[in-house]
Amino acid sequence: MSSLDSRLPSWRHGPRRDAILAFIDKVTDPDSPCYVAPADRIATFDHDGTLWVEKPHVTEITFIKDLMQHDEIRQKPRCGTILGFVRHYLAVLMEKVLSDARWLLREWLDGVSTDEYKVWVQQWLNKATHPKFNRPYPQLVYQPMLEVLALFRENGFRNYLVSGGSCYFIRAFSEQAYGIGPEQALGSQLMTRVAEKDGKLVVELKPVPWFLDNGKGKVLCIESHIDRHPVAAFGNSSGDIAMLRWAGQAKTSLCMLVHHTDDIREYAYSPGDKTLKAAADHGWQLVDMKADWLEVFAVTNGNSTSG
Amino acid sequence: MSSLDSRLPSWRHGPRRDAILAFIDKVTDPDSPCYVAPADRIATFDHDGTLWVEKPHVTEITFIKDLMQHDEIRQKPRCGTILGFVRHYLAVLMEKVLSDARWLLREWLDGVSTDEYKVWVQQWLNKATHPKFNRPYPQLVYQPMLEVLALFRENGFRNYLVSGGSCYFIRAFSEQAYGIGPEQALGSQLMTRVAEKDGKLVVELKPVPWFLDNGKGKVLCIESHIDRHPVAAFGNSSGDIAMLRWAGQAKTSLCMLVHHTDDIREYAYSPGDKTLKAAADHGWQLVDMKADWLEVFAVTNGNSTSG
Repeated sequence: MSSLDSRLPSWRHGPRRDAILAFIDKVTDPDSPCYVAPADRIATFDHDGTLWVEKPHVTEITFIKDLMQHDEIRQKPRCGTILGFVRHYLAVLMEKVLSDARWLLREWLDGVSTDEYKVWVQQWLNKATHPKFNRPYPQLVYQPMLEVLALFRENGFRNYLVSGGSCYFIRAFSEQAYGIGPEQALGSQLMTRVAEKDGKLVVELKPVPWFLDNGKGKVLCIESHIDRHPVAAFGNSSGDIAMLRWAGQAKTSLCMLVHHTDDIREYAYSPGDKTLKAAADHGWQLVDMKADWLEVFAVTNGNSTSG
Repeated sequence: MSSLDSRLPSWRHGPRRDAILAFIDKVTDPDSPCYVAPADRIATFDHDGTLWVEKPHVTEITFIKDLMQHDEIRQKPRCGTILGFVRHYLAVLMEKVLSDARWLLREWLDGVSTDEYKVWVQQWLNKATHPKFNRPYPQLVYQPMLEVLALFRENGFRNYLVSGGSCYFIRAFSEQAYGIGPEQALGSQLMTRVAEKDGKLVVELKPVPWFLDNGKGKVLCIESHIDRHPVAAFGNSSGDIAMLRWAGQAKTSLCMLVHHTDDIREYAYSPGDKTLKAAADHGWQLVDMKADWLEVFAVTNGNSTSG
């Protein structure tokens, strides 16, 4: 079957490509015992490291660091600036990414509307380039995963992003990059409040973490926003284990981890022993980026852009 | 136009029916300056009192009271029973509905999985009957609003429930009753946790209010779950004012309040001065149930069931 058809052109013929195509074929075949009704065709995808590059830093963190330099942000009143900068750079040096981000959010995001934040993200994505690949981040989405998203969509699936990053970041570009609208782009959240500005209601961010969409949080997020059991899930790290277990509890399911094995075309790093053990215990497929992907990054303008 | 077409058959010909049909016609006409692209056709609906009956008590409260009598629930370990019952009945007598519900949730819902709760709701809806109309609650949905939901859906809209009640309640039946799947049925939430049961992950309710989907909360809920601006919103009380204002900020929008004016076929009660003032200030349409609706309740089996 799979050796003759033209689906998933950036995937090398082999067990991972076969597994995806076989899954699609059986869940959409009304005569198969594994048939899944269209309403229940839900697929969930981690974002960083699963749909696009996450090294040397998670892109949203790079964005927030750049945001600090933005005139509009710098003009916002803030306190403790010098101490803040010292703490900031110490945090970066120590790679304490989370506490770094938390501090930045507290300093600058209070009172920013979600609409303003979205514009900042879009402006940044239009100009920022990746240090290793020297191209805009939206061009560093994985071509093979774009093909998986399209294959699922063509077969009646609804694709959801379930990102550990904030929903305010991914919703600014998920529709353009992945064909996934904001209502299907889920992520971590800050508290928000409704405020009046010029006689109109606006939704403003509050610098208070409200929901961390990682680990078991991904299951709670799926329950809260979708309330249907995903039948397919893709991830790449320990933060995705619970989501893959959740999808794996469906009668028929496809659970895959992207394993970063290609230090030439992308990066090579391990998801960690806990994740590898979970994959072995539950029989999840490991996508070997180096061996399985003929292209890595999005193919644009008819040219290969795979590294 | 509207006097000749057969849409919205349970709506009396007049300004409210005209307003709905004119809105649908202009937002779906590619040549109209008011055209709305399919992806942005979002309509939000309050539930209790807007899509179905909410008197003499909000149905979910009636459900929770009945749940107390359920064997399976009664067998759950609990403390302070006698004091609890006294508090419960005092609360009912004093119509302190919210504090009543909060107490019940704290006593009984800790550790109940969302799947279990959904089954309870479904079982209850199959047997419970309304004290005034003596029929199951799912037959007390408003026929004219079912027609609005269908009209919107046929015109490429996605309909969302945005209920002050809990999402765990409405998701148990929203697909069957309204054609609105769980991912589009939003409501108030308790905290949840992921637990292991028999080697599988389950999502359990915690008796801790997490999000109240009412008033400005409805705007935050829409922002969090949809992140697209609704262009139509229907409500019936002060808890819907912010949602209607939010929808009303779209370039073209339809905002309507169901006004309960029919004490024969349903109930007659005011939404309160604050709501009426907001409607006047913002130019929202008030649906006069007695005058505007030819049928009130869902028409089933070919028979009129309007009262």
